[in-house]
Amino acid sequence: MGHYFDYAATSPVCASIGCDVFRTFGNPSSSHAEGAAARRLLEESRRDIAALMCSDPEEVFFTSGATESNCTAVFGACAARARHSKVIVTDDSEHPSVAAPVAQLESRGYTVVRISTRGGRLDTDALRDALSQPVALVSIMAVNNETGAVYDIPAVRREIDRSGCGALLHCDAVQGFLKYGRNGFFTSQCDLMSVSAHKIGGLKGCGALFVRRGVRIPPMLLGGGQEKGFRSGTENTVGIYCFAEAARNFGSSALKGVYEKTLDAVIRAGLSPHIPESHCYHIISASMPGVRSETLINYLSSVGVYLSASSACSSKKKGNRVLEAFGLAPDEINSAVRISVSPLTGDEDIAALESALLSARERFGK
Amino acid sequence: MGHYFDYAATSPVCASIGCDVFRTFGNPSSSHAEGAAARRLLEESRRDIAALMCSDPEEVFFTSGATESNCTAVFGACAARARHSKVIVTDDSEHPSVAAPVAQLESRGYTVVRISTRGGRLDTDALRDALSQPVALVSIMAVNNETGAVYDIPAVRREIDRSGCGALLHCDAVQGFLKYGRNGFFTSQCDLMSVSAHKIGGLKGCGALFVRRGVRIPPMLLGGGQEKGFRSGTENTVGIYCFAEAARNFGSSALKGVYEKTLDAVIRAGLSPHIPESHCYHIISASMPGVRSETLINYLSSVGVYLSASSACSSKKKGNRVLEAFGLAPDEINSAVRISVSPLTGDEDIAALESALLSARERFGK
Repeated sequence: MGHYFDYAATSPVCASIGCDVFRTFGNPSSSHAEGAAARRLLEESRRDIAALMCSDPEEVFFTSGATESNCTAVFGACAARARHSKVIVTDDSEHPSVAAPVAQLESRGYTVVRISTRGGRLDTDALRDALSQPVALVSIMAVNNETGAVYDIPAVRREIDRSGCGALLHCDAVQGFLKYGRNGFFTSQCDLMSVSAHKIGGLKGCGALFVRRGVRIPPMLLGGGQEKGFRSGTENTVGIYCFAEAARNFGSSALKGVYEKTLDAVIRAGLSPHIPESHCYHIISASMPGVRSETLINYLSSVGVYLSASSACSSKKKGNRVLEAFGLAPDEINSAVRISVSPLTGDEDIAALESALLSARERFGK
Repeated sequence: MGHYFDYAATSPVCASIGCDVFRTFGNPSSSHAEGAAARRLLEESRRDIAALMCSDPEEVFFTSGATESNCTAVFGACAARARHSKVIVTDDSEHPSVAAPVAQLESRGYTVVRISTRGGRLDTDALRDALSQPVALVSIMAVNNETGAVYDIPAVRREIDRSGCGALLHCDAVQGFLKYGRNGFFTSQCDLMSVSAHKIGGLKGCGALFVRRGVRIPPMLLGGGQEKGFRSGTENTVGIYCFAEAARNFGSSALKGVYEKTLDAVIRAGLSPHIPESHCYHIISASMPGVRSETLINYLSSVGVYLSASSACSSKKKGNRVLEAFGLAPDEINSAVRISVSPLTGDEDIAALESALLSARERFGK
């Protein structure tokens, strides 16, 4: 698979996942023994994911991924609080699956306040101002998927509580879950929290939404009433078993060491990293001055080193809203790449990255 | 796995699917070689599913399953036609993932006409009457998931065209796709059509929505703009590869023979089948007079024969809307079971079913 540095986009399937995940195939809603076996594995998976989130199994609802979790949270929280307020407070560098539903609500008459995240720092003074009115929803991500900046969710919680604005707090924790802070660090602050399986070695098409006990939001998908009526549709059992297996096996302790070695290599190869004050240990945004992102990425791919210009989810969009919000200059944005690592990243990968970057600089650098 | 007669609820994973589906793990939106490999498999899968639907690849949008497909179609079609009409025409025995979004729209002011399906026959006279006004959406399923009745979708198409009511036609073809009629039989009639992977040997958590070229409905999940902006969220690549592999390998030609043998066994064992005039060859609804469904199912499960009371999706609900609509008497409904087969059902399974039913009759019958 070459040398993979795009773990923030997606990750290889956890090595301990084998074909036995296909064996328990029953529909968890079926009352016969095949159904019961599937139901058992489903609930074991929920229990283990909940434990790693430091939540209760009843607070974990499986979805088709973080996009569904985010859309359900944003639309659901605003519907639940519609009589209280039509104000949404978010930031200027959210993932499109938060930014787009928020923008749709804005077009339907909601007032949206987007807090600056310049330099990767959430402007808590501006946040405090924004919360001096009744607010339906505050949605702030845990870790930015392009810059690796960690936003101060405990401060957001404090400001909401202090203000009495009455908002529900949703946190897109896709890049934070199991990767930043102790387990439960983000969960403990939020009313709603989105996570994804495929960022930690699970399969694409599976995720979860944490909904704190007592918080009620309407479902998005209606039908057979699975997930206690909150998320209809036959449960994606294989995806869910794999999510739990990957989560149980995710070893974040190696992450900081890998990050530091990778950052050193990136700097030695002549790139300028854009490092936020508070950052995670798996995403590095950096620019090779004078070399366009696409040029660099295509060349690196041709020599078996895989990284991305920004996020995979915005790969087709023009410009870069997130890096602009971070405060990068246009030429820095045009030459920015994202290097993201995992506990699987080895020294030989880092060496290959460094040497490929060096040869790219020789080839394209001015 | 015992003797499985619940293929309408879900099916074992297609035997040709192995662990190699985990190997191509890239994010299809990533521009590097890993992403390109994933994208290639995704588009090959789409091409093959489209070919089996007799549609164009550009008309196939992957979703998290039929529930999402149905909700997207119902809400999307009504939103797209909101200025034209606020009337929905459907029938009285749809799957909950159509019936529930329709009911939600009804509570928001839509007028809903539910056509009778008594005896498993869609009342086309009533349909004609209902279409004598502007209509936003007609949603009629291809094959009923509890009775196996095949509804006359070509007649629905004709009535819509004749009436000039301007409705979009959505068809939940979950139990029809590859199982009833020639390939493309339902697709050729519809504007929107929902299918599911796990009913034909794929994984749960994956499905598709066919959207006829030229038909525009708004998306439900917003975000990174995958599926040409129609369905955001990183594509469920493993689910999609498995969907295509299962579809390529689904051999429906054996179905009629299996059905006839199973029906004979069911009758010999003393059950009364409820057979619609026009029916598919994989679902049999039947009652063992005087024996409650749950009693029979639990006993059969204890001896390794797996079937269901009705659909897995309504296993938690009281009463049975669908069998009532079919016209069964309360005691027939209380003793109804669903026996559903696949090309994998063998003679030894059918023999085991017959002998288990006979011993159940001896045990519980009056």
